[in-house]
Amino acid sequence: MKLTKVRIVGSGLIGTSIGLGLAAKGVSIEMVDIDPRSQALAQDLVGPSKEGNSELVILAAPISALSSLLDTEFALNASSSFIDISSVKTNPKLYVSSSNLPLNRFLPSHPMAGREVGGAESARADLFQGRPWIVDSRGVDSDVLAQGRELISLLGGHEIEMAAEEHDQAVALVSHLPQLISSLMAKQLQDGEEKWLELAGAGLRDTVRIAGSDPLLWKEIIAANSESLKTLLEKVKGDLDQLIESLDDPASVEKFIAAGNAGRNRIPGKHGGVARKYTYLPVVIEDKPGQLSALFDECAHAKVNVEDLSIEHSPEQLTGLITLALSQGDADVLEEHLRKKGWSVHAPRGART
Amino acid sequence: MKLTKVRIVGSGLIGTSIGLGLAAKGVSIEMVDIDPRSQALAQDLVGPSKEGNSELVILAAPISALSSLLDTEFALNASSSFIDISSVKTNPKLYVSSSNLPLNRFLPSHPMAGREVGGAESARADLFQGRPWIVDSRGVDSDVLAQGRELISLLGGHEIEMAAEEHDQAVALVSHLPQLISSLMAKQLQDGEEKWLELAGAGLRDTVRIAGSDPLLWKEIIAANSESLKTLLEKVKGDLDQLIESLDDPASVEKFIAAGNAGRNRIPGKHGGVARKYTYLPVVIEDKPGQLSALFDECAHAKVNVEDLSIEHSPEQLTGLITLALSQGDADVLEEHLRKKGWSVHAPRGART
Repeated sequence: MKLTKVRIVGSGLIGTSIGLGLAAKGVSIEMVDIDPRSQALAQDLVGPSKEGNSELVILAAPISALSSLLDTEFALNASSSFIDISSVKTNPKLYVSSSNLPLNRFLPSHPMAGREVGGAESARADLFQGRPWIVDSRGVDSDVLAQGRELISLLGGHEIEMAAEEHDQAVALVSHLPQLISSLMAKQLQDGEEKWLELAGAGLRDTVRIAGSDPLLWKEIIAANSESLKTLLEKVKGDLDQLIESLDDPASVEKFIAAGNAGRNRIPGKHGGVARKYTYLPVVIEDKPGQLSALFDECAHAKVNVEDLSIEHSPEQLTGLITLALSQGDADVLEEHLRKKGWSVHAPRGART
Repeated sequence: MKLTKVRIVGSGLIGTSIGLGLAAKGVSIEMVDIDPRSQALAQDLVGPSKEGNSELVILAAPISALSSLLDTEFALNASSSFIDISSVKTNPKLYVSSSNLPLNRFLPSHPMAGREVGGAESARADLFQGRPWIVDSRGVDSDVLAQGRELISLLGGHEIEMAAEEHDQAVALVSHLPQLISSLMAKQLQDGEEKWLELAGAGLRDTVRIAGSDPLLWKEIIAANSESLKTLLEKVKGDLDQLIESLDDPASVEKFIAAGNAGRNRIPGKHGGVARKYTYLPVVIEDKPGQLSALFDECAHAKVNVEDLSIEHSPEQLTGLITLALSQGDADVLEEHLRKKGWSVHAPRGART
């Protein structure tokens, strides 16, 4: 029962990442989206799909679109298995139970992976590698479950069985609450002087990273899980009241920060996604046209594969710093090559995650 | 007036990092700490100090220890310049004004750099590279200011002049509030099931990273800046109340998340400059050598200036997505050029920050 063709309804970050990951394993992918531009980009990324029926339909559209999709998709693919990837799990089951799609043909699932940027253009084939992927297999036909498991396994996910109700409580704490708290912090930055914001360091940036998330996506997730969240937010409010009251008392503040230490320490070290280990080779270039092109010509001549790169340069700066991410072996080759050719190459930094 | 010897009182993360950075520039460093183990480790890290007087004394001890140090340090080094590095700037000035150390011999300063781990063992010589370093030079002797400036310059810091009172308001927003909010989130993790915490992803981890900070250090900072913080926390509380009330209303939640987007977007880019607006042009390339080089050749032919770019592809993926950041005008030119040449170029996304 190997997957040969999969239909993915929804060409956003998650849908397209699934498509990329499966395509890399030789599965034919049909990408679908109500937005033709997203669908075209996603299909282009995953490559052309083959003729034939899809054994599995992955519902990767926003929760609000889910209920309206179910009957159409079931009519089009009556013999297929169905799986969804929504961030909330009780609602999709409700929608399915009031559609033509039988509940036993539908595996509710949730890959715990994402990025603060959305869309097909942010998709990554390895997005699910080593990440938890929750399924609620109660009452689901064994062939549907088997296909869901194959999907997760092909994408390198880590299958976790959890009832929809418990799932929604769990993600309220570890995913939805952090989103709201990060946004709450970032919201305060609307008021500060521009000069103050120039002092922002890594601490602030990390705390508000996910505050960059898509409002349209999150309004749905929050509304769909508002009951679990309300309980948590009331607790946060109580803690905040207490903090404000005891702000001048160093002993209370110490206890508060220590409680944060204790909570943070409960997060396990695993499942952090794939840490890709590269060697980082810094090259200082002049900030003039053609320099990047010339640098990549050198990379091509040296037959090395550039895995990633960053450009650091500011408007008034006469030089730019290009940091190339390479395998250790390629970094050694390129460093020597560039040095010989007179490039301003610096000592590489070792693997970082 | 080149610095040749500096005395650093306080061998924690900041003091030792300053020591390492200066030692790398050939300055002789005398590390001091009330804890002999910390002092020995720090001195070992920065290397042996030479005989002679220190031209500059850097007060890098916790704020609570500062007032008791001032008279002793002034008695020991009456002809030296003094600078502190505390995270709050109004209190140290108050302490100095009630000590024997004349206010004109003391430069209040604050390097905006740190890590969530503390101690001499976490010190880094490059901790201050490119980071803002605030000074309040009002009423300070020019020779003291000159030495402070040389210190900042040797460590690669970016000097910013700001009055102590404004500084304390600014860091309340961009440093102290994020600490409290991150701790507030992390505190909630004390209550969840262990199984739930195993679902933690990068979003939660980033949001609570600084919640790992030292309670002993932070109880002092918070207490010393409680007035500015109280105003901010009351505002947070108001926003939280409103969020709880409107949690079931997707339109309100959307507005809340969008306000977080807007606040976050005010944080300038890596170089402290104003966030720049580019147009992003996605190009799908085959993952084979020479493709990047060929793409940049096209950019050179089209005479467009690539401001930044990102590469998205993972090890097993057969295609790569290059997103080029360009001015709107250049994006238009390049899109047409690439399309003509048969490249798989997609519709550009508008300016993002």
